[in-house]
Amino acid sequence: MAHHNFSPSTYFQTIGSHAAALVIADGDTVTVSTLDANGYDLNNAHQAADPNPMSGPFFIEGAAPGDALAVEIIEIEMTRATGWTRQGLAWHLVDPHQVRAMPPREKIFWDINPRQNSITLQKPPAALKDWSIPIVPMIGCFGVAPDGGEAISTATSGHHGGNMDYRGFGEGVTAYFPVSVPGALFFLGDVHGAQGDGEIAGTGIETSAEITFKVRLLKNRKMRWPRGENETSIFTVGNARPLDQALQHATTEMLVWLEQDYGLDKIAASHFLGMNVRYDVANVFNPAYSVACRLEKSALAALK
Amino acid sequence: MAHHNFSPSTYFQTIGSHAAALVIADGDTVTVSTLDANGYDLNNAHQAADPNPMSGPFFIEGAAPGDALAVEIIEIEMTRATGWTRQGLAWHLVDPHQVRAMPPREKIFWDINPRQNSITLQKPPAALKDWSIPIVPMIGCFGVAPDGGEAISTATSGHHGGNMDYRGFGEGVTAYFPVSVPGALFFLGDVHGAQGDGEIAGTGIETSAEITFKVRLLKNRKMRWPRGENETSIFTVGNARPLDQALQHATTEMLVWLEQDYGLDKIAASHFLGMNVRYDVANVFNPAYSVACRLEKSALAALK
Amino acid sequence: MAHHNFSPSTYFQTIGSHAAALVIADGDTVTVSTLDANGYDLNNAHQAADPNPMSGPFFIEGAAPGDALAVEIIEIEMTRATGWTRQGLAWHLVDPHQVRAMPPREKIFWDINPRQNSITLQKPPAALKDWSIPIVPMIGCFGVAPDGGEAISTATSGHHGGNMDYRGFGEGVTAYFPVSVPGALFFLGDVHGAQGDGEIAGTGIETSAEITFKVRLLKNRKMRWPRGENETSIFTVGNARPLDQALQHATTEMLVWLEQDYGLDKIAASHFLGMNVRYDVANVFNPAYSVACRLEKSALAALK
Amino acid sequence: MAHHNFSPSTYFQTIGSHAAALVIADGDTVTVSTLDANGYDLNNAHQAADPNPMSGPFFIEGAAPGDALAVEIIEIEMTRATGWTRQGLAWHLVDPHQVRAMPPREKIFWDINPRQNSITLQKPPAALKDWSIPIVPMIGCFGVAPDGGEAISTATSGHHGGNMDYRGFGEGVTAYFPVSVPGALFFLGDVHGAQGDGEIAGTGIETSAEITFKVRLLKNRKMRWPRGENETSIFTVGNARPLDQALQHATTEMLVWLEQDYGLDKIAASHFLGMNVRYDVANVFNPAYSVACRLEKSALAALK
Repeated sequence: MAHHNFSPSTYFQTIGSHAAALVIADGDTVTVSTLDANGYDLNNAHQAADPNPMSGPFFIEGAAPGDALAVEIIEIEMTRATGWTRQGLAWHLVDPHQVRAMPPREKIFWDINPRQNSITLQKPPAALKDWSIPIVPMIGCFGVAPDGGEAISTATSGHHGGNMDYRGFGEGVTAYFPVSVPGALFFLGDVHGAQGDGEIAGTGIETSAEITFKVRLLKNRKMRWPRGENETSIFTVGNARPLDQALQHATTEMLVWLEQDYGLDKIAASHFLGMNVRYDVANVFNPAYSVACRLEKSALAALK
Repeated sequence: MAHHNFSPSTYFQTIGSHAAALVIADGDTVTVSTLDANGYDLNNAHQAADPNPMSGPFFIEGAAPGDALAVEIIEIEMTRATGWTRQGLAWHLVDPHQVRAMPPREKIFWDINPRQNSITLQKPPAALKDWSIPIVPMIGCFGVAPDGGEAISTATSGHHGGNMDYRGFGEGVTAYFPVSVPGALFFLGDVHGAQGDGEIAGTGIETSAEITFKVRLLKNRKMRWPRGENETSIFTVGNARPLDQALQHATTEMLVWLEQDYGLDKIAASHFLGMNVRYDVANVFNPAYSVACRLEKSALAALK
Repeated sequence: MAHHNFSPSTYFQTIGSHAAALVIADGDTVTVSTLDANGYDLNNAHQAADPNPMSGPFFIEGAAPGDALAVEIIEIEMTRATGWTRQGLAWHLVDPHQVRAMPPREKIFWDINPRQNSITLQKPPAALKDWSIPIVPMIGCFGVAPDGGEAISTATSGHHGGNMDYRGFGEGVTAYFPVSVPGALFFLGDVHGAQGDGEIAGTGIETSAEITFKVRLLKNRKMRWPRGENETSIFTVGNARPLDQALQHATTEMLVWLEQDYGLDKIAASHFLGMNVRYDVANVFNPAYSVACRLEKSALAALK
Repeated sequence: MAHHNFSPSTYFQTIGSHAAALVIADGDTVTVSTLDANGYDLNNAHQAADPNPMSGPFFIEGAAPGDALAVEIIEIEMTRATGWTRQGLAWHLVDPHQVRAMPPREKIFWDINPRQNSITLQKPPAALKDWSIPIVPMIGCFGVAPDGGEAISTATSGHHGGNMDYRGFGEGVTAYFPVSVPGALFFLGDVHGAQGDGEIAGTGIETSAEITFKVRLLKNRKMRWPRGENETSIFTVGNARPLDQALQHATTEMLVWLEQDYGLDKIAASHFLGMNVRYDVANVFNPAYSVACRLEKSALAALK
């Protein structure tokens, strides 16, 4: 169970079967630097093209199609004192009669202040001059290579993970991805310093970062969609348009999980979900939207 | 500011310009009994046809189109020791290849135990024999008469409110509806003893109840969609299909609210929403889906 | 089989259980005048509020829930030399980045020239100065009262018909509606002098008209959605959002029709539909979108 | 303007920047064999994995990002006397309550009879024993390499074309694709002997074929989506989910086309489209749905 410090020399704008950047073993931890969504590093130097240049891929020894790759997000450290967003909500998220009054979607800069644990607009409008948000870092885009030779743009997401932009993928969370190719080929990047639900401004606080994660292999797991777990919840993530379909996928995946691991048949799982389910709208901006279907572990405790 | 005890003799399956059942004044409180979604009362006697027979309408003196009606939900008391759901998730919420394996959607009964503050299945499958959920009552369907002479089925929802089936409409919440006709004509019913997000089993714990609420008039409010407020949050509710469009409406309504009452222009409101917004998937079962767009009051505090 | 000339004194903006304007018999024909979508008559006098004021309702003797009402559209005569549209495509039908460049949706007037069988813009832009379209009249909004006491806005559509805005509902077509209340209560109006697919400008050529139609009762038909038939095709119409769901409803209704009347089981009907089906996008503007699922009679001939 | 006969030795399940199989010049024609969607050739020998193995890619000399590649489909010859479909409509296209009664989606074989110009079921149900359909061949999947290093599964479609499964892509049609990489890298395959709208059974008559096509380069065309043209129509194709969004893309692309090449501004183009537009539902089965927005050349003639 080695620890690796890895500093990429190449970045990828697609998640696919690219040559491994580093070979690691089940149980290893890695600390890796990531660029922001537009390819800028900790010194604000442009290192790679957008969208969402990925660090990796990491080849996990022994990973085979049908396995699940567990990725524990141990730490996400801000490496730059600035981040950026786009100004204005994404136009498709406001009623059309309002679109004409929306501001142009210019790039806006924010200060990231780790000591105060706060993020503030560099040039706040008067109404927001006293406003700050806490740093709650998350990984916007990560996942494993899809099968069939696909190389999927980091602008979007799917069964393989990708650009889910879910604020639930923060420190202390373990993400699970269905392995589709030998070695899994794990990519990550696009850290956000903070973000609301839905990524409705089209970005989080986009910035460079250093991520420490640990991988574990779960052999022969039948998973179709990314899953996750933190101290209090388990969740599944469906990626598709429209939002209804992302929710349908996430719900189906959770139904299957309850059958697989919690001893519930479809009737029992339906009762349980019907009363306990929580949905998070992860992103409604990217080509595929993302919905998390979540259950509290406190509710699940009654099943054991 | 009178208090009224009201026991309906007629119930309505549409929300429209029906003759007022009771005339009340701005500031009055009302305690009213409601039937369950299939029309059964506290004695399990069938009193009215489904869907969701409504108590009311209450004519609020002085209410005029353009006003908002604030309805504070003071108390929702369970009046029956039983509730019901449908078995199995709604079929359109699981991937089609799973639909064929889903159980038939039979009516299933639950015991409501106010002393233990719990709800339990009458005939639990083995895996759920130790499982209960707390009573967290909510109003499934309530709203005000639409304009233009429409009488909208209580199966669905819209600008006027209606069958939003949002677990956020519980005790301690104030709901706001845009008034469209003189007197507002407020209807309510369809109480659920508990429910998860999305009403994905097609029902909450459907039961009879007694609701105590207080009305207030807000003159000349420009609202297009229902809004709400509790101790910790404000929220708007959009009702439409697909889910994307419900979210679009709710987001637009919140944007307008921030402009109207919080001194933010579209740029400031976009920054604020982008980082702070929370969405609740209220229902994905009814003809119109419902999404709540929510902001924590703690976040809003920075704006004052 | 009487003929009735009917000139309404009242118009309705909802389709519901309003008092019958005229009682007619199975087999009767009616000639009735209709207002344009904004309520203007043949003299451009404002007679009723929008949207889509309806002539009727006609009570058909003997019609009962479970029957189908067949309405043969014998003739649609233009009664005014002018019609109107809105300028610019509906904003939700162009990509959001184009919405800001779209023209405001002003009311624009057209000349209707029955002698030339043409419709021309009153003030054409230079590029359209030689452009005209033929008069191909259609009924935008017609249908029968829904059950459950609903009164549904003529802005939208559903199982009962309503504002489907399908150019396929023209002269020579027989429309079928599922009867939900005694007497069926048939409404009609909102004639368009011409229109493309989808009603993507938000209107057809809106004008007043005189419609001659004949009713027939089909007892005990199991229909869920409007159907239609002309010399060359049969079709079903699904009304819902998103377009996918309207298509799903129309397809399901056609599948059922093939089972009911053409002796096909689900396998045979699927083969037949898979190779022969045609879809028309009727409207993508109204609160409910409409899709027609169509089969050529020449293809159906092979089944007999 | 050479003619090339090309018989692939390798096939691709993604459309991406694979090594060129053949370099051709602007104006060249090519005759190429294609496999069926499951990878079977003219002898029913399995040659490649599904989905939709592609012949190509063809590198067109001089093609550069920003150009359009015109592909004239000169001939599509059936090379096998059999084709296959799946039994039963795709389950997501019928209302959920019908899904449980739908047949399993088994592979079903058809005879292709070029002499009679007909296609018939090998084992027809009794009701279809006299039923045949004419051979109307089309290309299910074709397109050019996307930029950014993406390799997109031939199961789906996008800006680059791909698995649009549009029956409008038959003999005599010229398709236009936006070139994104040097040489364009054109792929094709997945011929259907016939198909209705929407590919609602999930397939057309899947078979091997020999396609003859001619390429032309149009330098510096600003296109975002595939376009096409036949003797009577021009059309654009939008690819996305839900269907609404595919339609939005196709409509926007046609609006731009009318501005670019027909001298219409947005107001004139809107009038013209509003009255003349036709939509074809190309596919509602694949991960991205496809809608064609079509205009008759007879209508366009008035603009010159």
